Amino acid sequence: ANSILSGYGTTIFTVMSQMAVEYDAVNLGQGFPDVDGPEDIRKHAADSLMMDSNQYPPMMGLPDLRQAVADHNRRFYDLDIDWQSEVMVTSGATEALADAIFGLIEPGDEVVLIEPLYDCYLPLVRRAGGIPKTVRIEPPAWDLDQAALAGVFSEKTKLLILNNPMNPAAKVFNGDELAFIAGLLQQYDAYALCDEVYEHLVFDGRAHIPLMTLPGMRERCVRVGSAGKTFSLTGWKIGYITAPANLLQPIAKAHQFFTFTTPPNLQKAVAYGLRQDDGYYRAFQADLEAKRDLLASGLKAQGWWVPDSQGTYFVSADITPFARESEDDVAFCTRLTQDVGVAAVPISAFYDSDAPRSFIRFCFCKREPVLQEALEKLSVLN
Amino acid sequence: ANSILSGYGTTIFTVMSQMAVEYDAVNLGQGFPDVDGPEDIRKHAADSLMMDSNQYPPMMGLPDLRQAVADHNRRFYDLDIDWQSEVMVTSGATEALADAIFGLIEPGDEVVLIEPLYDCYLPLVRRAGGIPKTVRIEPPAWDLDQAALAGVFSEKTKLLILNNPMNPAAKVFNGDELAFIAGLLQQYDAYALCDEVYEHLVFDGRAHIPLMTLPGMRERCVRVGSAGKTFSLTGWKIGYITAPANLLQPIAKAHQFFTFTTPPNLQKAVAYGLRQDDGYYRAFQADLEAKRDLLASGLKAQGWWVPDSQGTYFVSADITPFARESEDDVAFCTRLTQDVGVAAVPISAFYDSDAPRSFIRFCFCKREPVLQEALEKLSVLN
Ligand SMILES: CSCCC(=O)C(=O)O
Ligand SMILES: CSCCC(=O)C(=O)O
Repeated sequence: ANSILSGYGTTIFTVMSQMAVEYDAVNLGQGFPDVDGPEDIRKHAADSLMMDSNQYPPMMGLPDLRQAVADHNRRFYDLDIDWQSEVMVTSGATEALADAIFGLIEPGDEVVLIEPLYDCYLPLVRRAGGIPKTVRIEPPAWDLDQAALAGVFSEKTKLLILNNPMNPAAKVFNGDELAFIAGLLQQYDAYALCDEVYEHLVFDGRAHIPLMTLPGMRERCVRVGSAGKTFSLTGWKIGYITAPANLLQPIAKAHQFFTFTTPPNLQKAVAYGLRQDDGYYRAFQADLEAKRDLLASGLKAQGWWVPDSQGTYFVSADITPFARESEDDVAFCTRLTQDVGVAAVPISAFYDSDAPRSFIRFCFCKREPVLQEALEKLSVLN
Repeated sequence: ANSILSGYGTTIFTVMSQMAVEYDAVNLGQGFPDVDGPEDIRKHAADSLMMDSNQYPPMMGLPDLRQAVADHNRRFYDLDIDWQSEVMVTSGATEALADAIFGLIEPGDEVVLIEPLYDCYLPLVRRAGGIPKTVRIEPPAWDLDQAALAGVFSEKTKLLILNNPMNPAAKVFNGDELAFIAGLLQQYDAYALCDEVYEHLVFDGRAHIPLMTLPGMRERCVRVGSAGKTFSLTGWKIGYITAPANLLQPIAKAHQFFTFTTPPNLQKAVAYGLRQDDGYYRAFQADLEAKRDLLASGLKAQGWWVPDSQGTYFVSADITPFARESEDDVAFCTRLTQDVGVAAVPISAFYDSDAPRSFIRFCFCKREPVLQEALEKLSVLN
């Protein structure tokens, strides 16, 4: 067995979802909506299964979807993208990340990462032969220490992986932070892999700024989007990469050998989905913002210390008021699931080592009655 | 860019399919059927898109499909498989191969391969850090040289990759060959990655024998199947792995980080598909055998030298009677597509170096009129 991969356990999302089922807990752990995305998008896929070809689509993706991705970049971010050379469809954003990491990295290259980390980043970087160099941000402020970030860049830095909006911190990087990052990439002649799957979920009037839109960044960024997140269809596993042609080419080689293609019928429906009018995106954002408000204010009312959630599906919370003596976030999440009936995810799972131990993550992309039920159950802690 | 991956060109299947479109040629190159698989299977998927959850299924696959895969192993091969610990669903057989190679191999491990090679094997092995050790079989006899195979095994051999039935050789390994291979695996304490996506396409009364069914092999084989191939739905990208738990565990880690999951609605429909009665599998086999007969006998009638096609979607043919002076298989395929109007694939594309240069591969999983049309077009060569 490969020693890098077999060193990692089963993903925390699966572990907590299984525990939630076992103890019949409200599952605010793994991030997935409990209401499926638009019926007309699903209908498009269903019709296509019966009426269109079910054979291999082109390796880079259906032209229709690649064009829709390019259009989406233009419409929301004023990015001018050539769909033929700069867009590729993948079997989910996870595959997109794997393709980019294996396609861009040469063994020995250094990769800069910001903890807390989405759980596939480190194993992928390590298995690809990359040397991870991490800086960390920590709750409750989740502030980026710019000097610390600059300190992990070196002449060997090939890639920065930036999750923005950031899971689980629910942080949306602002223009100043992004400009600082852009400066480092130029100074060290490095590239950025921008995991922007929550691009449409930023709250309180904030705007999502793709790093790719900053001066000099058009040629240095590989931008990853997700139909699963944007259309509340996480099982579809349709992702897309926007990148300059010279970066996309080696990434496409990884895709060619890792999965080769992605179901054409789902691709066609996602192309239709991306062309929804602005109202769809606004309503989606507003719906999730209202759910965030419901959960965050409910938690605060019960005495939780809740850092600001600026975007994503998630809100974090400090367990200090409720934790037993020497109970860390993992033990607390276990007790919460088994005894209180609410599943959450320990934030320490997103750090490689020496993690903060008193914060947990709740997912709020659930129906209001479910969030209410979770809050009711949590009230026994008071 | 990663130097291993960027050293590989666009897959020959894509190159030839694009050339076929450009020159309006009959496409007997890339292997995919031109009639989609059973309507009731597609209907199952379409209904599931509208009625079931469209969120992440379990990382290992839907229990329903994993049970169906275990049942399928029992029904066809008398293999006793525990679906919970020994079956995993993947986003196509290509992902299954990638997961197994990255999950099992440690950099420096030797991997034995038999040329001609399906095109993702070598790049995956090399990118995973494995050292490929190849033996070759060659047209027209495609005989396995057992001494040569034994010669590439060593104390460092970790894995053999065996494609059976074998693309593009259309060879079905017989019991004696498999027993010899099994002996080597035991002698060198190595494992086999068995790419058996054409398991239901063996002709002339032959039986497909999974290497896993041989004495001592139950614990050494990772068996890969494909719904795309078995149900003529190549775009669905649903594969499945059957392997002993200790081998499946590290493979599942690779899956967790490469794609994580596979669309649940398609999985559900494939579970239904695998439970088709024997009549489905018999008719599928008979249909493809009749198509093979049509194409192979038509080619022979025109003076082609056609090695025996024992299984798969493919028949190979010697171009010697028709090639111009110093025209190799690649040049011949180009001329065939552009001037004659029939796309095929050069067999040399399946060898790493020093390839045979006078054979090409035709795909016969096409409607009879299409095969007839191809034969008519080819008749101008006479
Ligand atoms: C791939 S399962 C995890 C879903 C998710 O993005 C999360 O919970 O953080
Ligand atoms: C993955 S595209 C190639 C399909 C195929 O298996 C072949 O043509 O050999």
